[in-house]
Amino acid sequence: MEVTTIKDIARICGVGVSTVSRAINNHPDINEDTKKLILKTIKEHNYIPNNSARNLKRLESNTIAVLIKGITNPFFNSMLKVFEKEIHKKKYSFLLHRVEEQEDEVDVALELEKEKRLKGIIFLGGYFSHSVEKLNQMKVPFVLSTGGISEIIDKKNCSYVMVDDVQESYRMVDYLCKLGHKKIAIITTPPSEESIGKLRLEGYKKALKDNQLSIDSRRILYNDDESLDSFSMKYGYEAAKKLLESDVEFTAVFAISDSIAVGACKAIFEKGKRIPEDYSIAGYDGIDITFYYHPSITTIRQPTIEMAEETIRILFETIEDSSYKEGKIFTADLIVGNSTKRIR
Amino acid sequence: MEVTTIKDIARICGVGVSTVSRAINNHPDINEDTKKLILKTIKEHNYIPNNSARNLKRLESNTIAVLIKGITNPFFNSMLKVFEKEIHKKKYSFLLHRVEEQEDEVDVALELEKEKRLKGIIFLGGYFSHSVEKLNQMKVPFVLSTGGISEIIDKKNCSYVMVDDVQESYRMVDYLCKLGHKKIAIITTPPSEESIGKLRLEGYKKALKDNQLSIDSRRILYNDDESLDSFSMKYGYEAAKKLLESDVEFTAVFAISDSIAVGACKAIFEKGKRIPEDYSIAGYDGIDITFYYHPSITTIRQPTIEMAEETIRILFETIEDSSYKEGKIFTADLIVGNSTKRIR
Repeated sequence: MEVTTIKDIARICGVGVSTVSRAINNHPDINEDTKKLILKTIKEHNYIPNNSARNLKRLESNTIAVLIKGITNPFFNSMLKVFEKEIHKKKYSFLLHRVEEQEDEVDVALELEKEKRLKGIIFLGGYFSHSVEKLNQMKVPFVLSTGGISEIIDKKNCSYVMVDDVQESYRMVDYLCKLGHKKIAIITTPPSEESIGKLRLEGYKKALKDNQLSIDSRRILYNDDESLDSFSMKYGYEAAKKLLESDVEFTAVFAISDSIAVGACKAIFEKGKRIPEDYSIAGYDGIDITFYYHPSITTIRQPTIEMAEETIRILFETIEDSSYKEGKIFTADLIVGNSTKRIR
Repeated sequence: MEVTTIKDIARICGVGVSTVSRAINNHPDINEDTKKLILKTIKEHNYIPNNSARNLKRLESNTIAVLIKGITNPFFNSMLKVFEKEIHKKKYSFLLHRVEEQEDEVDVALELEKEKRLKGIIFLGGYFSHSVEKLNQMKVPFVLSTGGISEIIDKKNCSYVMVDDVQESYRMVDYLCKLGHKKIAIITTPPSEESIGKLRLEGYKKALKDNQLSIDSRRILYNDDESLDSFSMKYGYEAAKKLLESDVEFTAVFAISDSIAVGACKAIFEKGKRIPEDYSIAGYDGIDITFYYHPSITTIRQPTIEMAEETIRILFETIEDSSYKEGKIFTADLIVGNSTKRIR
């Protein structure tokens, strides 16, 4: 197809190039009928205005990057939808960048800052244990969303939207204790991994302690296979298989993600055992599959939509006023499914 | 924190600003030791080169956009990972843009082209029934990946990577027929929706016909609720519930996506029925949950990794040589799970 230029449009409309340019750029100094004719002609001829300065300006200043740890977690999908909608509503571009589990998200962000003129950054997931000095290197407004934040970070120095992972996993493990379970295993991330697994393990330990149960390290399963994504069904499956094949006794499993819980269920079924009659299983995140799995899985549901909306709102506030800081902690819900049961 | 400028770096190194600029831009006309010193100093001071021209040039020309229909389909996650890896390897930026089900992806692409200087576009998912004229409006190299392509499009005019949806769904339904099922229901997208549901329905009808089974429209379930995503677990659940509550007889269900199949399973379990003893269920896509569901779900597995790699390879070939066109059709595998069984 022939490429239509601004000159062609001018010729067709019988006006000068500068008039076409005025129409495109919504300049006030142009006759309304002429403008209409030009825009109509542009549309008919599929002419794409090639105003470099304008395009570059847009590109330069209007991108919001979402840095995500673990794109495979369906938990993030509903949040991404909200981000995208709100970002486009404000006429910004949306750049999604996945951060590998072993990568440092702030390094990735600094690199992105260098390459692009970002207007804002959302860190989704992950675990923040960077020094304040390091965070301060970032010149672009950012919000930490749904990830864990280590105590190292003075929360006054940054904006964040999260649930309290320690408290929420405490809520779940305490629930299992109150159902009568005394031998509760946990499937979590490796101790070396800076992740929310750490915080959820902390909540587990705290709940056992408060229920006068001893912590048995053999019931704490870490991912020691680097090739396995620590939040995946496959990891949950392998970990539960190992547990079932050991001589460690347990009546309940707390998986630090729903995907892990699904994998663990599968391993239990493969052994010919039943859920919840033989073992109770609990997850964390509240993704759809917990309802559709058979049996449905008891979980901690984070209010993802509200959290995403707040993340975006706070980011835009910070873009307006760079000194703005806001931290918001949401409370999650314990959703009781058919995968957990009272024992005596 | 104090912002370090190019002048600070020059001062610290005892050189002129133009020398620092040469070091940053990898200019040959600079002493190697001086260059090393400058780069080291830049690193130590976390100086971020702010060479607008260079940055803008990069932005302008090095973005590859992935337009995706239905980001919630976990089927795409493994493909996105491959795209991202390969795109970054080539020093391009990766822009993910979700297209709403009711949106026209080519319109969205033309809009993106206008806003950004894209280097290439991957259309992921969706269903292509655009006129060749419309496709030709796109000035940027593109590849259609894993979506359905209607017969309207002369495939010689574009690059694509796909499986044959008609043939693959034929394979599944034929398998169900060979197991002895004579009353097979299908859960698919609305007839008005331009989607792969259309092609998969076609394969279903063809298989029934070839097995001398009549097509009963009461066993064809369409999504008539606009608020429901046609590929979701929730839709599968609602559709199967409706089917179970009707007086339509069926012994097997072919769901046009695995997520629909999972939802359908849940509805069957809720009615107190068993899978596969009372009903056989089959899905399509081959996502992880088909293995981890209990029972595991019989499905069509598309070779997603290979397909993603081929998509990217073809796109880069087209970027190198704009006249390059390649179409590739992959064969999928029928994975037999525990959700289907022979009947007499």
